[in-house]
Amino acid sequence: MGHSIELGIAKVNKYASRESGDTAEVVERPGGGISVVVVDGQGSGAAAKALSLMLTAKAITLLKEGVRDGAVARAVHDTLLAYRGGKVSASIDIVSADLKHNNLVLTRNGTSPVIVHSGTQTSAIPAGEGPIGIYPFTRPSVLRFPIESALQIWVVTDGVVTAGRKWGAPSVDLESETAKLVDSDLDARAQAQSLLKIAIEADRGRPSDDMCIATLRVVECEPDTSMRTLHMIIPGS
Amino acid sequence: MGHSIELGIAKVNKYASRESGDTAEVVERPGGGISVVVVDGQGSGAAAKALSLMLTAKAITLLKEGVRDGAVARAVHDTLLAYRGGKVSASIDIVSADLKHNNLVLTRNGTSPVIVHSGTQTSAIPAGEGPIGIYPFTRPSVLRFPIESALQIWVVTDGVVTAGRKWGAPSVDLESETAKLVDSDLDARAQAQSLLKIAIEADRGRPSDDMCIATLRVVECEPDTSMRTLHMIIPGS
Repeated sequence: MGHSIELGIAKVNKYASRESGDTAEVVERPGGGISVVVVDGQGSGAAAKALSLMLTAKAITLLKEGVRDGAVARAVHDTLLAYRGGKVSASIDIVSADLKHNNLVLTRNGTSPVIVHSGTQTSAIPAGEGPIGIYPFTRPSVLRFPIESALQIWVVTDGVVTAGRKWGAPSVDLESETAKLVDSDLDARAQAQSLLKIAIEADRGRPSDDMCIATLRVVECEPDTSMRTLHMIIPGS
Repeated sequence: MGHSIELGIAKVNKYASRESGDTAEVVERPGGGISVVVVDGQGSGAAAKALSLMLTAKAITLLKEGVRDGAVARAVHDTLLAYRGGKVSASIDIVSADLKHNNLVLTRNGTSPVIVHSGTQTSAIPAGEGPIGIYPFTRPSVLRFPIESALQIWVVTDGVVTAGRKWGAPSVDLESETAKLVDSDLDARAQAQSLLKIAIEADRGRPSDDMCIATLRVVECEPDTSMRTLHMIIPGS
């Protein structure tokens, strides 16, 4: 059996907001594989959107040039700090399927936990390093996992973590909810959508903040299934 | 009813080739909407792959900076000509859902036709301008279509157009095959996969060249379906 990589992303704006401060982009790595970049720009609305678009643009440009993920996060931080003088922060998560070195690589700066499923174990890994843009020489935390069957990584933005807080409700239990989804028959996108729906419900149907969920998993596949596919849906306004 | 934008991409390597000279990337436009860039680098294998990765990198960097599509194609051409001295060519197609100006924009240099369905009509539009990288001041052809229900655009690379030629078989009739798919219940990705399978069959199951198909369509949707989603599958090696 070979391995294939499956990515699912689901994203929603803050209630009644036309623009999201969360931006997610995917690019092909020059060495083989893909990288997903998720940036949550401080605040919401047009300014946060412009910020997160600018920072993801910087990140994917460098990734496409073959720059290693940890250096990309450092560069995005340095640029933000240089141009906004420490007054604006953002979180950045880069999840890469590095097929050249057969690793999933998780590079992050922010406050949200990531969830890692290894087939037998589920762990919520709290944020190690804080957001980018504020202090000099901020470094990302970097984790590497060998690509093997049933490995799955979840990245969520702040709006998912704090869903329900406005109403005094308990936070979504990301560890147990994702564990259920990983064991389901749903594909990666349907899993991301399901978790996003749970977070939206915690906010009583009106997201208090932009929310984005991305999940990357390793799936066993027949070695001869060689078609790459992408499917994207952008709801209208 | 509102409109949503749906994108499907399907891609396969030349038979027995680990790397594809066709690269497809999608980015969010800073003004709103998405752009899909499809580049077919001359030849196949590692050199063609490096070329198409480099050219898509250039294109998405500029698109993310808000540069208009026609200027992006010109810039990619100029860079290729400057650095390869007219010895290497490539085709480039940029399909954008420009939600700021409510248009689908089709910008292209190459030899493959594009297929446009407008609800009542199907037209194969032959390539107007040739590939990039060879002659000074090459310009793209640019077409704009107002976003309206049932509008759908198909972009295919050379390997799809020439499928079957090696065996003396007739080319895939892109106009009639896509017309059937557009009228089917399949989503955009399933449509791209179906057309790709037809092209692979024309090559007797062993693609003679890298093949990529991207289709962007406008779908009616309820105004309250506000979740953006992405799903990507990268088959293993």
